[in-house]
Amino acid sequence: MHDDVLQELIHLFSKLPGIGPKSASRMVLFLLKNKEKLMYPLSRSLLSAGEAIKKCKDCGNIAVKIPCNICDNPKRDKSVICVVEDVSDLWALEKTGSFKGLYHVLGGSLSALDNITPDDLLIEQLIKRANSENIKEIILALNSTVNSQTTLHYITDKLNGTNVKITKIAQGMPFGAEINYVDEGTLTTAFKARKPV
Amino acid sequence: MHDDVLQELIHLFSKLPGIGPKSASRMVLFLLKNKEKLMYPLSRSLLSAGEAIKKCKDCGNIAVKIPCNICDNPKRDKSVICVVEDVSDLWALEKTGSFKGLYHVLGGSLSALDNITPDDLLIEQLIKRANSENIKEIILALNSTVNSQTTLHYITDKLNGTNVKITKIAQGMPFGAEINYVDEGTLTTAFKARKPV
Repeated sequence: MHDDVLQELIHLFSKLPGIGPKSASRMVLFLLKNKEKLMYPLSRSLLSAGEAIKKCKDCGNIAVKIPCNICDNPKRDKSVICVVEDVSDLWALEKTGSFKGLYHVLGGSLSALDNITPDDLLIEQLIKRANSENIKEIILALNSTVNSQTTLHYITDKLNGTNVKITKIAQGMPFGAEINYVDEGTLTTAFKARKPV
Repeated sequence: MHDDVLQELIHLFSKLPGIGPKSASRMVLFLLKNKEKLMYPLSRSLLSAGEAIKKCKDCGNIAVKIPCNICDNPKRDKSVICVVEDVSDLWALEKTGSFKGLYHVLGGSLSALDNITPDDLLIEQLIKRANSENIKEIILALNSTVNSQTTLHYITDKLNGTNVKITKIAQGMPFGAEINYVDEGTLTTAFKARKPV
């Protein structure tokens, strides 16, 4: 029914995360209505961003200039590394402004199902950094899923020989949550991890 | 926090329908992870589709070759025109396979709020087509919203002088719907438009 070029464009959009064929069609029709304002600028931006943005082989962050502006910032505490799974997690933490050290982006989590092994993640580089630099603490800020917790245990195991203090972010009640709406797992964890007031 | 090229790309994605800044970031990170497989092909496809796909000034459909393959198909019934608001509506109707005539895509619906007047839609061309071609019936397949119904009345009014039979698609119970779950408006319409069994 569709022309090939149209079909191809819809197909490419539908490969994006969270986008099905219907949303992809909607986006493409919207773009075709706004060729000069959106479609061509998007085409150019995809190419230039793709060529300009690189991934740091040491810390895993993405940036135009490597080392990135976090690694390169003299004001950041170079003795603490916060380990995250993805760049989006780094962005989320930066938004809170609560961390002033360095980051290490793993690039995902271990998964037997998706065949993601330690070699697919930036784990070797993390151990190198932990050994070579003046690192005092490594904070594991990983997700609360099974895969992420497996990754956490794997990394903790690997870092066991070093003199670095290894911590992980707290699990418990989300901010503003109500006890009778929170799931059982969260409530159990929060209860077990209770602290003196 | 972000580099300019990255910021620009996220900004452009967030202009797409149904996409907020968070989904846009997610898409951009996904694209950066799949530069060769997705990011560059998407950039190329946007440019080539943008340049290749044109809008027919008479029927309003989009296609690489104008007249489009519907207008150009000798098997289609050239005496019936189905009027729709958008190309996506045309696609939805084509999927059902229940219509074998020609289409006329208005390009939206009248809206005082969004300042969309008859001149912004392909209404003049519809009246021309109704007068000049051997048209026997014009089917108005417009949405059931207030704006669309206003558009329907406007078009019906304009077509009143011609000899063409004007129909609109039926309103009533959706296929598979249950009476106690359907909204009041639909139920009232379905009740009023009852037919002998």
